[in-house]
Formats: sequence, C-alpha cells, structure tokens
Amino acid sequence: MPNKLGEFTVTPWEVKGEVDYDKLIREFGTTPITDELIERIAKFTGDVHPFLRRKIFFSHRDLNWILDRYEAGEKFFLYTGRGPSGHTHMGHLVPWIFTQYLQEKFGAELYFQMTDDEKFLHNSELSLDTTVGFTYENALDVIACGFDPEKTFIFSDIEYAKTIYDIAVKIAKHITFSTAKAVFGFENSTNIGMIFFPAIQAVPCFLPSVLKGKNVPCLIPAAIDQDPYWRGVAREVAPKLGFYKPAQIHSKFIPGLGQGGKMSASEPETAIFTVDPPELVHSKIMRSFTGGRSTIQEQREKGGIPEICPVYRYYEILLKDDKDVREVYCRCREGELLCGEDKLRLSEVVQTFLKEHQRKREEAKKTLEKFMVRD
Amino acid sequence: MPNKLGEFTVTPWEVKGEVDYDKLIREFGTTPITDELIERIAKFTGDVHPFLRRKIFFSHRDLNWILDRYEAGEKFFLYTGRGPSGHTHMGHLVPWIFTQYLQEKFGAELYFQMTDDEKFLHNSELSLDTTVGFTYENALDVIACGFDPEKTFIFSDIEYAKTIYDIAVKIAKHITFSTAKAVFGFENSTNIGMIFFPAIQAVPCFLPSVLKGKNVPCLIPAAIDQDPYWRGVAREVAPKLGFYKPAQIHSKFIPGLGQGGKMSASEPETAIFTVDPPELVHSKIMRSFTGGRSTIQEQREKGGIPEICPVYRYYEILLKDDKDVREVYCRCREGELLCGEDKLRLSEVVQTFLKEHQRKREEAKKTLEKFMVRD
Repeated sequence: MPNKLGEFTVTPWEVKGEVDYDKLIREFGTTPITDELIERIAKFTGDVHPFLRRKIFFSHRDLNWILDRYEAGEKFFLYTGRGPSGHTHMGHLVPWIFTQYLQEKFGAELYFQMTDDEKFLHNSELSLDTTVGFTYENALDVIACGFDPEKTFIFSDIEYAKTIYDIAVKIAKHITFSTAKAVFGFENSTNIGMIFFPAIQAVPCFLPSVLKGKNVPCLIPAAIDQDPYWRGVAREVAPKLGFYKPAQIHSKFIPGLGQGGKMSASEPETAIFTVDPPELVHSKIMRSFTGGRSTIQEQREKGGIPEICPVYRYYEILLKDDKDVREVYCRCREGELLCGEDKLRLSEVVQTFLKEHQRKREEAKKTLEKFMVRD
Repeated sequence: MPNKLGEFTVTPWEVKGEVDYDKLIREFGTTPITDELIERIAKFTGDVHPFLRRKIFFSHRDLNWILDRYEAGEKFFLYTGRGPSGHTHMGHLVPWIFTQYLQEKFGAELYFQMTDDEKFLHNSELSLDTTVGFTYENALDVIACGFDPEKTFIFSDIEYAKTIYDIAVKIAKHITFSTAKAVFGFENSTNIGMIFFPAIQAVPCFLPSVLKGKNVPCLIPAAIDQDPYWRGVAREVAPKLGFYKPAQIHSKFIPGLGQGGKMSASEPETAIFTVDPPELVHSKIMRSFTGGRSTIQEQREKGGIPEICPVYRYYEILLKDDKDVREVYCRCREGELLCGEDKLRLSEVVQTFLKEHQRKREEAKKTLEKFMVRD
C-alpha cells in the first residue's frame, strides 16, 4: 500500500504533511547516507557536494555496490526523469543539479525520461499534446543544468515508444495486478494505462543494457517519493530479466513557499518556476511562509525556527559556502535576523540564480536536438 | 464476465464445446445477418460470397450503418488481425479470404494488426523474438490471400509501437480496471501488460482517422470470439474520443479435425497449417473425426451427420459451387458417401488449395516489405 505514515503521506503522486525522514527510511527500507559513505564518494569526486554535506541527498540503495563496480572499472549510468505536467520549478532542479555533478565526476551517461504518457493518463485536465509540449519546455531546464550533450539522452515516453514499449512488455509480463496494486494502491477506478505505466517507468533502468547488449549498472538520483517504482517493480524484475538491480540515491522534498508539503506546481503561488520573471519571483518570496514569530518583539526574544522555514531551506540549496548557511541559521535562531531582511536577501539570491539559469535555458534551445533521442 | 454459456465457452482466448450460435448472438447482443441484408450487400458487390450464402459470416454490428455511409459516398476501411503465436492454419485464413473479397468489392483499405505483444504477454513459453518472428511468417499468408499492396497496411504492435502507443494511452485513459475486468475476466494474477492490451487492440479502429485527420468508418471482419474487444472497449471509448464506433461482421469458428472446438494450433494434429507438406495434410485429414457411423452397414442404413463433421465443414469453405456442397451433404445423409471416400476427396481439394496458397506465399516474400508499415 502507498505510504500513509501517520501525520504524513508519501506516494509517487502525493507528499503531504511534515515528513519524518528517519521514519521514511525505516518504512521504505532504504539506507541512510553516513559520513563514512560520503567520505568514500569523495575519494572518487575529490570533493563533497553541498547537497551531500547538507543531507539534501540523505538515503540510498546499493550505493556501495555501484562504487565497488566503478572501482573495478565498470562504469555506471545515471537515470532520472520528470513528469512534464507544467513548467519546471526550483524543486525539480535540485536532483538535476546533483545528477549533473555525478555525471561530471564519474563520466557517466545520463538517460532522462520524460513521462508525458503518465502525466496525461493521471490528470484528466491535461491533453497529450500539452504533456508532450512540456517535455520540450522541461528539457530546456534539464540542459541548462549543464549536462554533457555527448553523454545525455533525453526522451519522451510517447516519442521514444518504439524502443520503450518493446522493453516494457518484457517487464510487464513479470508484474501481476496484485503486485502493482500492493505497491501503488491502484483501485478499480484506476485506468488501465496507469496500471501498465510502472513497466514503462522501469524501462530506463535496463535501457542502456539492452542498447549496448551488456549489463550496465544503473544509479537513479531522485526524490524519495519515487522509490516505490524501483523497489516494487524494477528491482523485483531485474534478476528475472538478467539485469542488475538499479541503485538509488534519494533526495528530500524541496518545500514550497507555503506551510508544509513539497514545492508543487498545483500551488503556483508557492512555487518558483524557472520561467518566472524577476518581479513575480520577488513577490512570491516576500509572501513566503517562514519560521518567524508573530511579532518583531517575539522574534527578537525567542529567535526564528529555521527548521520549518522554506526561506532557510532555499539558502541550503543555493548558497555555496557552508559558513554563509550557518550564519543565516545562527542569526535567525538568535533573533538577530528578521524575516523581512531574510526574504529580501533570498529574493536577490534566487533572482541571480534564475537570471543565469534563464540565460542557459535560452541557449539550450540551440542544442536541444542534440539531447533528444527518438525512435 | 467472459462468456461461459452452459455447455460451451467463448472468450477471446478460448472456445470450447459445441457452440450454439443463436445463443451466442443473444448473449453478445449482436444482430444476425438476414437474407435481406445479404441482398443489400449484393447490390454493392454484384454477387454473394459463398461465406455469406453458407452463413460462415452470420452476425454483425452496424453493418447497415456502414452501407448507409458507403452509399452516401463515405468509404470505410477494414481492420482485422492475427495473434502471431505460431504458423497460420486454415481456420485463420477464412476471415482473411472474406476480408480480401470485401477489399476488392468496396475498394477498402485494410489495416492488419499483428498482436505479437499480446501473444508474448499471454504465453509464458513464448519469447518476444518468437512472436515478432511469426508476425513476418503469418504476414506471408495474409499477402497470399491476394490483398492489394497499395491499400493494405500490415503492422507488428512491437514494431509500430510509436504510432500505436500514442493512440493507446488516449484509449486507456477511458478504461478503468473494473471495465477491463468485467469484459475480459482479468484476475489478480493477470500481468499488467495483458491488462493494458485491450487499449492496444482498440487502436486500429481509430488509426486511419488519426492518420488522415478525419473520421473514417471502420468495419472489422473477425471470428465472433473477438467481439468483447470491440463491444467492451472500442465501441465504448469511440464517442469519448470523437470517433465512429467500429462496425463488425462475425464469422463462426472453423473446426479442427478433432471432435468439437475450433481449429487450434495447440492441437497440431487436428490443424492444417499453411506450411504443412502434402503428405502431412493427407495423413491429418485421413485421421479426421467425421460425422460418420461406427460401421459401414450402419452408415449405409442411417447416413452420416454432416452437421457435426469437420470434413463436411471444409467442403463448405473450399468448394465454390453450392451444388457440389449440396451433393456432398445429400450423399452423406443418404448413406451413399462413406467417410473414407469423403476424406480422400477433401485431401485432394485441400492439397490443391494449399499448393496454390504456398506458391503465392512464396511469391509474397518478394512483396512483403511493400505491405509492412513501421514507425
């Protein structure tokens, strides 16, 4: 059954409430990323990415195994993806930024799946033309993250269907309705496209092995809500098809600017989209929920609560220097930093980031075709 | 639920027992083909095909509507198909022969679907390479029936998946698991590929409309066991997608050479395959079940029972002249014709038919590529 974990819910389609990540690790049966593992990764990368230091990537499956294989001279590939139901927001960028880092450090190929079929099947409001259209819009944001055009293959499920469907039926043959129902909580009212879809989402785990005619280890960087797809389907089926089980590295959810939950396009006033103009970004951030107190006086006396504050979380993502993040944390805690000042600064940081991202996104229009693979 | 009709069973995967076709028409809710309708068809074709005269095609849905549209200047296309799990046998040829006649008389395009995906998903013994391989073997038999290469499009679900999957997800979005379960009797142990497959099988009903960008009426000639696909899926979904409901014309099952049931590749000793050499055909027919009596004396006295005799049924299919069929019937009934003589003659008729079919099948290897469409 989908994980409804008391006060919070995490499924591939929904994240609600204040997520207890330790509980999630226990429930999902994943492994926390320890300092020791971070050190081991650093041996290969030469540094530690801020997202690892700051535990934004916090959990994994078989990451040591992937490094063992890499050490033995066997390169892995990366697989991640996006459900193109609308414009990209900053929450989406976090795993992509980290994936780009992994590609660079490990010289890994990336297979990037755009699940335009799923978004169409899942959402009664969306036409297939719309979701396929967003495949191309979102691909610009992926490319803007700096991926290597020689090693990056972005594909739409719909437009790459000839290659995908062939592998998907081989996966689907091993997944009964019971299994799919147990993993995803399908109901009698679920449409048959959604029921088949887990087979499609598992395809990229094995795609390079099929294309290259030899077993290639797979590492999936993605938010932890996608874990059921790999745990319940890809990892179950892999040995039956003679493939390696895909390894995973999981990120936390990136909060929206409202109270609780992850950044979601369905609440556009609390999400910063990559195509938002600067004024809109500014006004969204200035209206953000924070960990601040109700009055200035109370804030000065008790200090704010950065742990629940999306503004603080964004510094964690965007500031390169740990010292700067720490400073925000301490000044907030001590009641020195007020929310107004804090938000003004974040607005500037985000605008600077987005200005650069938007420039690269515009550039990406020229190279888009180099990245897209079709049948 | 699948139709288990007392003493006989008819589902898309199984036909068992002595089929009562009048009961089947009532249960499925189709319409019998009347003499009046045959006359109406003859106005367009200029003749009456033996399969109509002999009620081998006996039931329909919306055939008058298709003729109305044709009369109003709107051409229809034909859609039929084959599950390529093995070699073609003579039972398969019957709807194809009739479909070729309809193509010729109505100048209709034919979309011919090879469901290599379904046969792989349904049968644990078959690899996908095997079923795709039989797509090409079976296509030779289709072409040997004399279809027009300019108007005939044969495709493998696997190899034409790019075009098919796009349309299939649009269909699938409107089919809940409940509906699919009610129509096909899916169970918890059914794999998710089979659950999705009804959407794939419905695609060709709308494919020409999608390709041409306008609504084109569809007529499906097929054995009646395939009716659930069109009744439960294609005809339900058509209005939601803005397409015409497909019309149908249904054939009876072609019996095997054993007692009861339809000709089936799973009982190869009772099925005549198009690739069988003459000696094998001869020995299979000589061992056939018949409607004869246990002794020659009893046969002379009481006569045989052509109604239950596969040998007689084959004359109905293969002899052009009604007078010749009638003569076999009467001579058998009157005890004049003995089974040995009867089978010897059928063996000659079938061998003559197959010799010509095999010649055309060999020829078809040269034109195969003209008929196959891929993405």
